[in-house]
Amino acid sequence: MSQTPDSAVRTYIEQHRAAFLDDLAEWLRIPSVSAQPDHAADVRRSADWLAAQLKKTGFPTAEVWQTPGAPAVFAEWPSDDPQAPTVLVYGHHDVQPAAREDGWDSEPFEPVVRGNRLHARGAADDKGQVLFHTLGVRAHLAATGRTTPAVHLKLLIEGEEESGSPHFRALVERHAERLAADAVIVSDTGMWSEDTPTVCTGMRGLAECEIRLYGPDQDIHSGSFGGAVPNPATAVARLVAALHDEHARVAIPGFYDGVIELSDRERELFAELPFDEGQWLRAAKSHATRGEAGYTTLERVWARPTAEVNGIGGGYQGPGSKTIVPSSAMVKLSFRLVAGQDPDHVEKAVRAWAEQQVPAGIRCEITFTGATRPCLTPLDHPALKSVARAMGRAFEKPVRFTREGGSGPAADLQDVLGAPVLFLGISVPSDGWHAPNEKVELDLLLKGVETTAYLWGDLAEHWRHAP
Amino acid sequence: MSQTPDSAVRTYIEQHRAAFLDDLAEWLRIPSVSAQPDHAADVRRSADWLAAQLKKTGFPTAEVWQTPGAPAVFAEWPSDDPQAPTVLVYGHHDVQPAAREDGWDSEPFEPVVRGNRLHARGAADDKGQVLFHTLGVRAHLAATGRTTPAVHLKLLIEGEEESGSPHFRALVERHAERLAADAVIVSDTGMWSEDTPTVCTGMRGLAECEIRLYGPDQDIHSGSFGGAVPNPATAVARLVAALHDEHARVAIPGFYDGVIELSDRERELFAELPFDEGQWLRAAKSHATRGEAGYTTLERVWARPTAEVNGIGGGYQGPGSKTIVPSSAMVKLSFRLVAGQDPDHVEKAVRAWAEQQVPAGIRCEITFTGATRPCLTPLDHPALKSVARAMGRAFEKPVRFTREGGSGPAADLQDVLGAPVLFLGISVPSDGWHAPNEKVELDLLLKGVETTAYLWGDLAEHWRHAP
Repeated sequence: MSQTPDSAVRTYIEQHRAAFLDDLAEWLRIPSVSAQPDHAADVRRSADWLAAQLKKTGFPTAEVWQTPGAPAVFAEWPSDDPQAPTVLVYGHHDVQPAAREDGWDSEPFEPVVRGNRLHARGAADDKGQVLFHTLGVRAHLAATGRTTPAVHLKLLIEGEEESGSPHFRALVERHAERLAADAVIVSDTGMWSEDTPTVCTGMRGLAECEIRLYGPDQDIHSGSFGGAVPNPATAVARLVAALHDEHARVAIPGFYDGVIELSDRERELFAELPFDEGQWLRAAKSHATRGEAGYTTLERVWARPTAEVNGIGGGYQGPGSKTIVPSSAMVKLSFRLVAGQDPDHVEKAVRAWAEQQVPAGIRCEITFTGATRPCLTPLDHPALKSVARAMGRAFEKPVRFTREGGSGPAADLQDVLGAPVLFLGISVPSDGWHAPNEKVELDLLLKGVETTAYLWGDLAEHWRHAP
Repeated sequence: MSQTPDSAVRTYIEQHRAAFLDDLAEWLRIPSVSAQPDHAADVRRSADWLAAQLKKTGFPTAEVWQTPGAPAVFAEWPSDDPQAPTVLVYGHHDVQPAAREDGWDSEPFEPVVRGNRLHARGAADDKGQVLFHTLGVRAHLAATGRTTPAVHLKLLIEGEEESGSPHFRALVERHAERLAADAVIVSDTGMWSEDTPTVCTGMRGLAECEIRLYGPDQDIHSGSFGGAVPNPATAVARLVAALHDEHARVAIPGFYDGVIELSDRERELFAELPFDEGQWLRAAKSHATRGEAGYTTLERVWARPTAEVNGIGGGYQGPGSKTIVPSSAMVKLSFRLVAGQDPDHVEKAVRAWAEQQVPAGIRCEITFTGATRPCLTPLDHPALKSVARAMGRAFEKPVRFTREGGSGPAADLQDVLGAPVLFLGISVPSDGWHAPNEKVELDLLLKGVETTAYLWGDLAEHWRHAP
């Protein structure tokens, strides 16, 4: 155990809790909705607010970084220990759209505390989880008597995450030197539940494409020609049907190339989580589970690659009927990728497979629209162990391990900076990200503060830089 | 051969040709577009014009029959021979929409003769082919010296064919007694080509349905849940893929029940037609043929039942991507049916098959939106032989036999009246039905007149009523 006295940290947090929540409420009042152009000024105001707040916290450097879209905020607080590792915290200061009439019980940009919950758009996703790093680093300093953090601490808080991070990778590439780090800590995720603190060890990657099939040069009469020419809507359906084999495995040759299989240890760890399939199905608003044979539901969404239809269309979709052979049809597919898979290799495999499926007389156009690499931190990585230890001290409970089924810009940081990505989040599934009445549990938020107050010291102690 | 002197018929037609074309032009100037509400008065005017014209022709009865939509015209001219068969001619007086800016070289409702062609909306579909019955019956009377036709002649000319004949079946049912006939002659089709006069012996039937599959209660995140719940877009694609087997035969159990297979004789007759696959493909605006193994293209479109996707849709179809598992997906299917198939039986077969395909967790809703029975006249039917003989005399060429791949309200007449349906049409594929610059070949139009001038005598001679 570290020598940092936990009680000193807790006392500091308790003393500064009210001011911290006031600051958070002030930030939450700025409707920094990146998807809505009429909020562009608010997003800029949010960046300015955060940069000022980080300066106030003590970061010697806190800058607003412009992009062709919304600005990001970068801050840096070097350690006085030159051998300390460098950690880059990632988060975002933009939020999803929200309006009272969407079903909010109060104004989404007028924070309100009900019981132990702070309700506002962005409370959990992601302003609360960004801001806990400010009080966290102050508590770390106060409890240790340090004047600089035990690690070289950097923050990069982007302003377009809720809009797909269109300029994020370019921003990271441009500033790669200033962003250089030994580890990236993403504070934009959650944990298993109120009772089960967890650390996420990876996210799936993503490759997305649209396949358009062209048959007749225009819609043609199904009576005059039907049954004697290839129908692109039928062809697109047969393509989709061929995506999976009878075990619900993706049937594209080469798709699984390089996949890092789940270790027995990780399967055990997943199995230890208090998983309730009925509850999961309710969250999924679905009526049955279905997926690759030989894997549990959690393994399927966290650790297995998938091929999913996001949209399909062709021909007449209006009311009533129209007896045509449609001229074209399309399908939008997304492939979730796991560690070891290369989006470029997957793209090649999909192209070769699709072109081979399409019957004579049908022309095939495939467009790949985006790719995100998977990321995975090995269970024995020293930084991961530090995060789990710090979290365990804060929550006074054993910490378990999860993964995320989704994909995020964190992968760009891993990619460009060559640093492992760790996830430190205290949000819980009931927080209602992107939904009305988004909230953050105040107890958990302060556990987040406390975790970071322990983390920097633990990291510096157990993971000396370049020995 | 009938004793009607062909030269007398030809002379009569030649003498009255100019007046006939003037009448046709007058009718074509009425824009009787049934699909456009602002032309409702024109459709009524067209019905009134036709009823008056039929009176002028000599029909003792010519009435406008109201429907909840556009009116039909009924006319009757009994024969003085009580044992003569009764023939009901079917056609329609409404037309497809047309506007100069669609690509017409002249005003669509201002008929113009260029060379041997009369251009106007409705010239071939169907006013020209309705009106040739007026000059035809006059020529028949003039050449035979009769004062009444050799058959009991009835006409039913509907006003909503181009709008899907929504009130036609009810109209026929209401007036079934007055419409009673031994045979129905449909003059709303065409022949193989200018050089190859043909008689159509059947049309395919039609059963249409929409299948909607419901998965999650709303679109859900493909990262959080993808790969572990059933996707309705995937399910709909798999359903469509299962429609056909590897021989492109419909794979729905029971679908082919009752199908009257093509006879060797009819396959020979089809094979005798001067079929050019390249030309057919150009008309189909398609780039390959594809269909049920063991059948030629003509056999596939004329004499084999099909399952065709008219539309498919589900999930996100806009620009870019959206990583969801969609909440629902749908497909619109149409089944062309051939003689011997029963639309109700097909509906039952499709429902049983679809419900059995759908995976657990997906709810299936099937709506059948319309059904038309197939019709087929046996090659040895005496009335069919009369039509072929009359056409052969007019065209001075052997007459061949075709079928139509499409489906039409003629089947309702066959159904309600219990009478065989015959097709007498002189339109050719180049006439441009529903397209800009629709035209009718004047020579062929007058061959149509001549055919009907011979037909009534031939029928009365070879097909005595109730012997």
